Amino acid sequence: MSVITVERKVLEKNDQVAEMLRDQFTRQNVTVLNLLSSPGSGKTTLLERTLELLRGHIATAVIEGDVQTDIDAQRIARHHVPVVQIITNGGCHLDAMLVRDALAKLALDDIQILFIENVGNLVCPASYDLGEKFKVVIVSTTEGDDKPVKYPKMFRVANVCVLNKIDLLDYLDFDIVRFKENARMINPNLHFFDTSAKTGDGLDKWTDWLEHLI
Amino acid sequence: MSVITVERKVLEKNDQVAEMLRDQFTRQNVTVLNLLSSPGSGKTTLLERTLELLRGHIATAVIEGDVQTDIDAQRIARHHVPVVQIITNGGCHLDAMLVRDALAKLALDDIQILFIENVGNLVCPASYDLGEKFKVVIVSTTEGDDKPVKYPKMFRVANVCVLNKIDLLDYLDFDIVRFKENARMINPNLHFFDTSAKTGDGLDKWTDWLEHLI
Repeated sequence: MSVITVERKVLEKNDQVAEMLRDQFTRQNVTVLNLLSSPGSGKTTLLERTLELLRGHIATAVIEGDVQTDIDAQRIARHHVPVVQIITNGGCHLDAMLVRDALAKLALDDIQILFIENVGNLVCPASYDLGEKFKVVIVSTTEGDDKPVKYPKMFRVANVCVLNKIDLLDYLDFDIVRFKENARMINPNLHFFDTSAKTGDGLDKWTDWLEHLI
Repeated sequence: MSVITVERKVLEKNDQVAEMLRDQFTRQNVTVLNLLSSPGSGKTTLLERTLELLRGHIATAVIEGDVQTDIDAQRIARHHVPVVQIITNGGCHLDAMLVRDALAKLALDDIQILFIENVGNLVCPASYDLGEKFKVVIVSTTEGDDKPVKYPKMFRVANVCVLNKIDLLDYLDFDIVRFKENARMINPNLHFFDTSAKTGDGLDKWTDWLEHLI
């Protein structure tokens, strides 16, 4: 029981800081997206392709969350975009305080869209508001069409769902209609994009949506 | 800082209960495997195929851990194996106390191998000893060959690594040699099985190993 109490206090503190961040993002006109998924959904590859496609149109920046390494931040840095790495040292999610610290290293005035790539985890990060405008859950077709039902909180809090690795659909028993029905049962307002970050399929609609945000 | 202290106390309590469970499993001659992976690695399918293949040779039982639903326990129950569902209500991992409670519903004396399917999460469950003899991390080829480096704790604590969905290798940029090098860099003693729970490929070696355990 004492653990639950502490957890609640941690979340209250987190939400307070997240609200301050949200105000700051609004004041400085930065649209922030929190990217959430299991490990291996293709989150970083999707982000890399997105940064390429937005290049020249929109000023982007990235905060990378990882439990241990800066491999992903190195991948992102190749795209000549400002990137700050947060290493959680085993922590299973980003929180608003970590994001606040990372912001000290970014010139927010020069940024239109800030992507926060969360730790690969479909459970814990769902509970932590980072002050973002949109939570984007990325699911790969290889994970199975039952994932919304099995990890409902993530789908409940998300605004957008990117279904990635659609290039593999022919080789999988993945029912795309059932997946979306499952997800809409949890969250009727979820907005979908079907993509293959590998082949580029569907990325135009996703980046069109991003461009219309600002 | 206070959170870290509480976390430490939680882990200490967990480890005490895990040691009691380990003694109990040894006394009652039950071999326990803790199955760990990301969501969508094919853990439940692998378990279903394993139960089928062991049927008639070995008396098995399953403890299913899920954040919300009993979908997986229903799948397991079809194989006429004793199964207990633990629903964590959003909790991101199983702990030893939950397993102790679940054991009250199993006749351990009749069981030779107990599989504990943990919550789909490559981060948090790595910290919680459940009294098991072996931690088995299941990774699907679709998750990418960098996963051991990005989630090192899980690979450090695991004894066995099942690389699943090898039927998809032709369609992926997954380097199986690099994956194993990455994993062995973290844990030189890791023992590997390459499987496709879907096609059945490689399951013979995995079940041979299981049969030799008892």
